[in-house]
Amino acid sequence: MTEEALTEEVVARLDGTPDLRLREVMQALVRHLHAFAREVRLTDAEWIAGIGFLTETGQISDDVRQEFILLSDTLGLSSLVDLINNANATPGATETTILGPFYVPNSPQRAFGDSMIEFDDGGELTTVSGRVLGHDGSPIPNAVLDVWQNSANGFYAVQQPEVQPPTNLRGIFHTDQQGRYEFRTVRPKPYPIPADGPVGHLIDITGRHPWRAAHLHVKVSADGFRSLTTHVFDASSAYLDSDTVFGVKGSLVADFRPSGDGPLQCSVDFVLTTDQS
Amino acid sequence: MTEEALTEEVVARLDGTPDLRLREVMQALVRHLHAFAREVRLTDAEWIAGIGFLTETGQISDDVRQEFILLSDTLGLSSLVDLINNANATPGATETTILGPFYVPNSPQRAFGDSMIEFDDGGELTTVSGRVLGHDGSPIPNAVLDVWQNSANGFYAVQQPEVQPPTNLRGIFHTDQQGRYEFRTVRPKPYPIPADGPVGHLIDITGRHPWRAAHLHVKVSADGFRSLTTHVFDASSAYLDSDTVFGVKGSLVADFRPSGDGPLQCSVDFVLTTDQS
Repeated sequence: MTEEALTEEVVARLDGTPDLRLREVMQALVRHLHAFAREVRLTDAEWIAGIGFLTETGQISDDVRQEFILLSDTLGLSSLVDLINNANATPGATETTILGPFYVPNSPQRAFGDSMIEFDDGGELTTVSGRVLGHDGSPIPNAVLDVWQNSANGFYAVQQPEVQPPTNLRGIFHTDQQGRYEFRTVRPKPYPIPADGPVGHLIDITGRHPWRAAHLHVKVSADGFRSLTTHVFDASSAYLDSDTVFGVKGSLVADFRPSGDGPLQCSVDFVLTTDQS
Repeated sequence: MTEEALTEEVVARLDGTPDLRLREVMQALVRHLHAFAREVRLTDAEWIAGIGFLTETGQISDDVRQEFILLSDTLGLSSLVDLINNANATPGATETTILGPFYVPNSPQRAFGDSMIEFDDGGELTTVSGRVLGHDGSPIPNAVLDVWQNSANGFYAVQQPEVQPPTNLRGIFHTDQQGRYEFRTVRPKPYPIPADGPVGHLIDITGRHPWRAAHLHVKVSADGFRSLTTHVFDASSAYLDSDTVFGVKGSLVADFRPSGDGPLQCSVDFVLTTDQS
């Protein structure tokens, strides 16, 4: 039995998969997985280390921590999947980026202009505002913005259940009849991905830094439009050129401008597409 | 940013990995993982399904259940790693095969000819015997055979802590001064891999059967020789041609012969190599 013949035997064993798309995905997975092992001449010790790494990655995950998403993010897979599925969106539409591991559904509904701050972390007060538009420039009323970001201490609420209220710096907002949205928050901070798990260890032993550039997350949706998952990056942040999860796109970088004695102002429009492909 | 440029950015981010072998493995892993996603045009829904599958695979694993090894086995990766690392062993040496997910270290030491049966499962009594030899044919005294197999009910002791004693059908034996070994057991049975986890589900939805051909496992070691991990397959077993983990090699198939009113007789020699490469 040669190595290549074994690969083809495994592929053939999947020929009977009833779902043709599942068959395609699984057969390609086997071919690429085997090609990797053959290329590097994977040793027994490396194989069992890999088994242990994956097991630990699953076991440290729970309802609020998703270490496999973190692994996918740090290996660039999440950004690649984003590119594959969104690169052909309508020109002019806001670019997408990764979801990240800290999204929590069912954030509180908040009114136009309301604050998401439920915990005094000493962060710089900021007003984020703008419009949600169709790619023809027409405002979209009643669009939904699901927003989440980290505290000035670097952590998301979901990471600090003993410290932050669970809904701190999370909220669901709607645009008004002119397609405008507005909310009050703190300036997001650069932060390292969690260092206490297997992915943090992998980042460490591969000589990489664990930092993400400062950003807030938003999912924007509206009837008849394609839902958008993206970030707003702070133009003054460190790590814009070396974000550890490869999430930065130049078009997503925005200024957080001083405004006298008032909050910082960050103005961002989100442009949706009707392209569902 | 093109898909290929993203892949190369991730690869470049690993350039600083201090351990050169780790760098080689991680950069190849990223290239093959990305090539897979690009080839199948992995969708967001498929990506999150994969994250969920891997998470579940880690979480169902515990001290005595290793679902990631089972996944590796059923994708043929374990057999491929075995081929990569053992294909160049000395001609005439016993062939290796996979470890499987049910190995438990520290089996009880048992004397020459002793029984491993600690639970009456109605199986066919069998005597397994033979010699451990160097590839020049010289007997190896005091070689160690670490043996484990399933019960006639289909399960390994480690899978049935409420039913079987934990050391049932496991044992460590030594060869005598003539290189001989012998132990009493029951005839192993074909069995399905566990169906109640994510890997069992994957086998099901890919239209595969979950059965392994009947076998006993043995790890053979001796000072100055390369350790051997292999199986002895029952020549009369079903599934020799379609073992669901791709573990069968023709040279590892042995007869379980009737012997009057006595136990079945299975005679197998194990030939070790000094090749440590």
